[in-house]
Amino acid sequence: MLCTPVYFMRKTAVLCLLFISANIFAEPLPSWSNGKSKQAILQFIKIVTDTESPEFVRKAERIAVFDNDGTLWAEQPLYFQALFIFDRIKELAPAHPEWKTQEPYSSVLKGNVKAALAGGEKALLEMAMTTHADVTAEEFQQIVKEWISTAKHPETGKLYSEMVYQPMLELLHYLRANGFKIYIVSGGGIEFMRPWTEQVYGIPPEQVIGSSIKTKFKIRNGKPVLMRLPELNFIDDKEGKPVGINQHIGRRPIAAFGNSDGDFQMLEWTTADKGARLGVIIHHNDSKREYAYDRDSHIGRLDRGLNEAAERDWTVVSMKDDWNSIFSD
Amino acid sequence: MLCTPVYFMRKTAVLCLLFISANIFAEPLPSWSNGKSKQAILQFIKIVTDTESPEFVRKAERIAVFDNDGTLWAEQPLYFQALFIFDRIKELAPAHPEWKTQEPYSSVLKGNVKAALAGGEKALLEMAMTTHADVTAEEFQQIVKEWISTAKHPETGKLYSEMVYQPMLELLHYLRANGFKIYIVSGGGIEFMRPWTEQVYGIPPEQVIGSSIKTKFKIRNGKPVLMRLPELNFIDDKEGKPVGINQHIGRRPIAAFGNSDGDFQMLEWTTADKGARLGVIIHHNDSKREYAYDRDSHIGRLDRGLNEAAERDWTVVSMKDDWNSIFSD
Repeated sequence: MLCTPVYFMRKTAVLCLLFISANIFAEPLPSWSNGKSKQAILQFIKIVTDTESPEFVRKAERIAVFDNDGTLWAEQPLYFQALFIFDRIKELAPAHPEWKTQEPYSSVLKGNVKAALAGGEKALLEMAMTTHADVTAEEFQQIVKEWISTAKHPETGKLYSEMVYQPMLELLHYLRANGFKIYIVSGGGIEFMRPWTEQVYGIPPEQVIGSSIKTKFKIRNGKPVLMRLPELNFIDDKEGKPVGINQHIGRRPIAAFGNSDGDFQMLEWTTADKGARLGVIIHHNDSKREYAYDRDSHIGRLDRGLNEAAERDWTVVSMKDDWNSIFSD
Repeated sequence: MLCTPVYFMRKTAVLCLLFISANIFAEPLPSWSNGKSKQAILQFIKIVTDTESPEFVRKAERIAVFDNDGTLWAEQPLYFQALFIFDRIKELAPAHPEWKTQEPYSSVLKGNVKAALAGGEKALLEMAMTTHADVTAEEFQQIVKEWISTAKHPETGKLYSEMVYQPMLELLHYLRANGFKIYIVSGGGIEFMRPWTEQVYGIPPEQVIGSSIKTKFKIRNGKPVLMRLPELNFIDDKEGKPVGINQHIGRRPIAAFGNSDGDFQMLEWTTADKGARLGVIIHHNDSKREYAYDRDSHIGRLDRGLNEAAERDWTVVSMKDDWNSIFSD
């Protein structure tokens, strides 16, 4: 079969892509078992892409948003960005002899994670500023690129980029093949994700939304640079997620995927408007193949989401039952 | 001629698009006269899209940024958003009897623009807050949509959307046909532009960067809304433009188009990196067909840009000599 080019550019491209996607996706989402979750997702994609459907959505408005930590890759025993912060502290330590006796740095250097995190979010934020600022945007990008391609997870010994979920990679792929534009909307640092999301998820930097520190344009040695400042700019979590979505995208998504109560408002915002909407919560209930945690977890706490998913018609994905495989290797 | 679908999706699409674009653009940029400016633009596009060229840039990195006021549409006798603010004040006046005696509102209501703007940027910013906040993001979108489809320019009597530059529309079209992703990077309000940029320029809301006020997620009558607050979030002008570009795009553009010193740092940032780069300044020097202003203008002041364009290898477009037509009608 051939696809004929016609004079209207967009139409030609669509005809070709549909033909090819039908070939590639003989069986969509192969790592998902054929349960209610997979059917709900496939049914949603079908009704918004079928031009004969009353729920049809034009391509430009097929926006899907994904949380990152715990939704696209793992987040235990600690957010991977916290582990990056600890690695940075160890690397920067020679230039900071005062850290030997100064908390929380001293605990990090001794490898005592519990003591290092005793100061809670405030301590972690301070360490993030120390380790993420005072370099240019492009220097920071290089630092992250080197870390992501060499650092290993403390429990699995894998590269962090190998701890992404295979069923979610298939879902990203299938959504893209159906004309969706995919954004990451994460509480994690926007500049911590951008250097690797294109390679790992196929999501380009301009489709990554996250928390940020301020940057300042200046001329250094005759060249313009963007200096990263130790000053908070935006927290992309909870009520911040719909705000971040509006800032970056300027229209409401039609599908949202999360795993914790930090994603609640993003799902609420996405699914409140008229027309077909999809809200999905990934439930970590597989202690054998990954981790099992929800209502009482300090990381990725999921409580309200579990309580209200049914009445809000959100799909709760059981990692144990709905996924045939977990990691992408 | 047919384009054959192959198994690798991206390749097929590219083959078809190239074939079709060759047909559509028998003569690229017809409203541009065949001078140095047009040649510089076409030459740049050629060397970054030709796979045999040492300056070839892969499609994902072909990012072009455009200022809006004075670059894509006119900006005289006042920024169009200032005229929108005045129209909003007149509309809101019945609910604000105090404005009859309160400056700058009282001058706006009397139609005395000069007196209304006597307070400079501070007064304009205050009026922007008053007229842009205390509604939801979606309500504001509707207000702008109605205004842009009905309000008329005070001097030409045209719709504002008819005061976009035909040569620039052709350039946007030609860049897109060559695989570029186009962003607006404007000092104007991001939510003032998004409701109409897709229809007028073919630029979707997620590719619009601008100044903004803060928004807050809240539940109103059981439904989630984003309330617009009378509080400044970000000024996307001068040194702010590279910062806004980095926030939204996360990579450096390879082409930048502006018309005033407010765009200087955007062009500087874009053209400072290695590889082929294009910096273009639109020079308003056509008093007959549009307006003539530069070094001494209060709006769209262009001084440093004119001084340094040659040494920085930026192209200065003469609206008088390089453009066969000005407006899109």
